[in-house]
Amino acid sequence: MSEGPDSREAGPDRPIGFFDSGVGGLTVLHECLVSLPAEDYLYVGDSGHFPYGEKSADELLERAQVIAGYLLDQDVKLLVVACNSATSAAGDSVRELGRKAGVPVVTVVGPEAEIAGAITENGRIGVLATPATVSSGAYHRALEEQGRAFTVTEVAAPDLAPIIQGGATFSEEVVETVRGYCRPLKEARIDTLILGCTHYPLIAPLLQRILGRDVRLVTAGHAIAGAIQRRLASEGALRDGDGEGGYGFRVTGEKESFVTLGTRFLQLPLGDRVEHLEI
Amino acid sequence: MSEGPDSREAGPDRPIGFFDSGVGGLTVLHECLVSLPAEDYLYVGDSGHFPYGEKSADELLERAQVIAGYLLDQDVKLLVVACNSATSAAGDSVRELGRKAGVPVVTVVGPEAEIAGAITENGRIGVLATPATVSSGAYHRALEEQGRAFTVTEVAAPDLAPIIQGGATFSEEVVETVRGYCRPLKEARIDTLILGCTHYPLIAPLLQRILGRDVRLVTAGHAIAGAIQRRLASEGALRDGDGEGGYGFRVTGEKESFVTLGTRFLQLPLGDRVEHLEI
Repeated sequence: MSEGPDSREAGPDRPIGFFDSGVGGLTVLHECLVSLPAEDYLYVGDSGHFPYGEKSADELLERAQVIAGYLLDQDVKLLVVACNSATSAAGDSVRELGRKAGVPVVTVVGPEAEIAGAITENGRIGVLATPATVSSGAYHRALEEQGRAFTVTEVAAPDLAPIIQGGATFSEEVVETVRGYCRPLKEARIDTLILGCTHYPLIAPLLQRILGRDVRLVTAGHAIAGAIQRRLASEGALRDGDGEGGYGFRVTGEKESFVTLGTRFLQLPLGDRVEHLEI
Repeated sequence: MSEGPDSREAGPDRPIGFFDSGVGGLTVLHECLVSLPAEDYLYVGDSGHFPYGEKSADELLERAQVIAGYLLDQDVKLLVVACNSATSAAGDSVRELGRKAGVPVVTVVGPEAEIAGAITENGRIGVLATPATVSSGAYHRALEEQGRAFTVTEVAAPDLAPIIQGGATFSEEVVETVRGYCRPLKEARIDTLILGCTHYPLIAPLLQRILGRDVRLVTAGHAIAGAIQRRLASEGALRDGDGEGGYGFRVTGEKESFVTLGTRFLQLPLGDRVEHLEI
């Protein structure tokens, strides 16, 4: 095993920083650990302030600035905001912090919209997301920026993230709930669905079965891994080699519950890589 | 929801039958439920006689014939042997039973070898499997039958299936174990790995991370879903439509443990679809 992120100095060997309100962003980290295994990663889960969905815009802005500041102090070479709420409330502010520090910032929403716009054939794109994300209009705007007219069907799923976080992912209740959310998407004859919440990859097989295999699913993890790779490659900061980098976690809440809950989301060991962080 | 398999009569509307010694074959069923959602499925788990790895060839042959006979009596339109041990010991016998009944039989090994042979670019193929499967030489022979000379590196993993079945899939112990098995595969510079045991898809992300993303993983589930589709399409027996079919389970062992254990392997609800079967 290589050493942890903290021991790196500069260039390709600096870690990639992630932050999220809790465990959801671990599905994004999962994809990066699998797709870009040579990199080092440092993930901050602001679980002490979860859920972000219930915070005011000012509170979210403050949390995002504190955590982004911490990660920039850790000398990350790229910063990922792996959280829809934080991206909506503080994406521009974090990008500005990154610009000042000379560190690129990648957030959710944009990369998924870019992939969905590139792969749709019939131009009918679905978005499944939390009510807050749908009402923010973020995916709608990001799809409009692709410079092509799409027919976008957005479905707000109030109970899906809590059900998934609660662990009842494979119950008949979930199947019926998901079937209901898929109905308008099927009626709209979408050929591409953006999973607009980092919890949803855990039910990707169920969505694929209900929607049929001709519908392509776009996750933030897949989209962000691609965006990181392009960005680092263009700056000569992608780490070479076929070895594995290290990864570690700092959580503002309780360690044990983050490990227990997070394992389902990361699908890789969290184990003794988690430290409590008071910020 | 459509009705269960038992209510079907003929043609495309008959169910597809599966059998396995326990829960492993559920990773194959998972892929079929996602890739071919319109079909009905009936899965027999011979959990009352698990594990098959410790049975004699005669015992395995007898169990395979009993279960294949049961599924043929249920009027399946295609029969899948989703188990390496049963395929080694009784594949030919089950194929013969199917031939007499006019029902096509798809087993593991062949479809994975076919895909691996088609997608490898450097001709270096790895096989990760149980010691029994490796010593049977089944994958070696199946790759030879592809009519091209491959460099095949087989790694026998005695403890991987039990560790996965035991549930410690995301521990550091598993990571170290898998890293050890991957070492000869990396040294052999394989570009394609056959996951030669139906338990292994549960650690596919870990394998992908350790081997690097340039190595393509071939699972029995993916290969068999493709084989079923081609076979049924050629016979005009593929079910059309974008709806979901039904699926059910018959187990020769205890119901509750099959549901608990099986959920991790199916990644879809088993719930109240499981019945005990005395054969």
